[in-house]
Amino acid sequence: MTRRTGRRPGNPGTREAILDAARAAFAERGFDAASIRAIAAAAGVDPALVHHYFGNKDQLFLTAMNFPVDPGQLVPRVLAGDRDGVGERMVRIFLGVWDSPAGSAGVALLRSAVSNEWTARLLREFITTQVLRRVLEQLDVAPAELPLRGSLVATQMIGLAMMRHVIRLEPVASADPEALAAAIGPTIQRYLTGPLPT
Amino acid sequence: MTRRTGRRPGNPGTREAILDAARAAFAERGFDAASIRAIAAAAGVDPALVHHYFGNKDQLFLTAMNFPVDPGQLVPRVLAGDRDGVGERMVRIFLGVWDSPAGSAGVALLRSAVSNEWTARLLREFITTQVLRRVLEQLDVAPAELPLRGSLVATQMIGLAMMRHVIRLEPVASADPEALAAAIGPTIQRYLTGPLPT
Repeated sequence: MTRRTGRRPGNPGTREAILDAARAAFAERGFDAASIRAIAAAAGVDPALVHHYFGNKDQLFLTAMNFPVDPGQLVPRVLAGDRDGVGERMVRIFLGVWDSPAGSAGVALLRSAVSNEWTARLLREFITTQVLRRVLEQLDVAPAELPLRGSLVATQMIGLAMMRHVIRLEPVASADPEALAAAIGPTIQRYLTGPLPT
Repeated sequence: MTRRTGRRPGNPGTREAILDAARAAFAERGFDAASIRAIAAAAGVDPALVHHYFGNKDQLFLTAMNFPVDPGQLVPRVLAGDRDGVGERMVRIFLGVWDSPAGSAGVALLRSAVSNEWTARLLREFITTQVLRRVLEQLDVAPAELPLRGSLVATQMIGLAMMRHVIRLEPVASADPEALAAAIGPTIQRYLTGPLPT
């Protein structure tokens, strides 16, 4: 047996080095400004290797965050249907992820984000670029209102995840997902498409 | 100098022993079932000493949680005014506490609650008995609906605190409190007094 020391394709150390560089870049510069090229340079590898291992930038981001679900796959389901139902569908699909085995990754991410500023930054980038922007850009609302609408949605969604899965306050902790979608859906709908205070 | 070893009035160890026993009792049995008498017994002191140090059970609970604000003082302000404005007033007063120096204790409590099951239990008891029950009992809603209404309010409030003060997602993180009260108040109002899905 020979012991590998250098970085080369297939070396697990290379993969981790890329993910470390990606986390640093996404946290420091934000998702949009971080480039695969710069992440590859920081990890000391060719950009093609980053693509080979992780696919595109969205996929690299999700892997770097240990996030087991790709919101890009879920957003079309949120948007499929009438505009007035998008709030309720968003809550239903959100709960579907959190109530699944993937939810434990979400709890771990929340736990880390409350005590670690870097994870908090990554979580902000994740919420904004992977979820909210994708939904809001399809809803025909004024572009200037997107940030406020998005962050209002985030307050309700993160609070739902906190109370159901972390603090576990009853009856929300064990309520039927459909009942929660019916109760909380109108809140999300108003934040997304309703009138905003001026 | 003589070294004190026993527990006696004025010994700082006594005060801490009472607070430790109180945290254990509130977390294990819940606020309502925990008695000053049992807490005193667990700490090896007379119940009168607990009252002498900490006042009533509410005050002991707030001290045990290191919570710098007594919701009992704030609830009358939430309820003062028309019933349709209670949601907006609740958000405004909640933000007033979180935006004040007391907010750092709230952030510390949230951080602890996401990683520590005991603190999560104490936080659940705090939210339920010190805040939600006091507001909801004055609002003339069906008693059977109180738990769901209260826990829905908690999802939105805790999410607001998380996004504004812990994750710090903009623009919610630095938005004017009045704008947030106007945007989020109707959500709280609906959870408190609006129709619930059946």
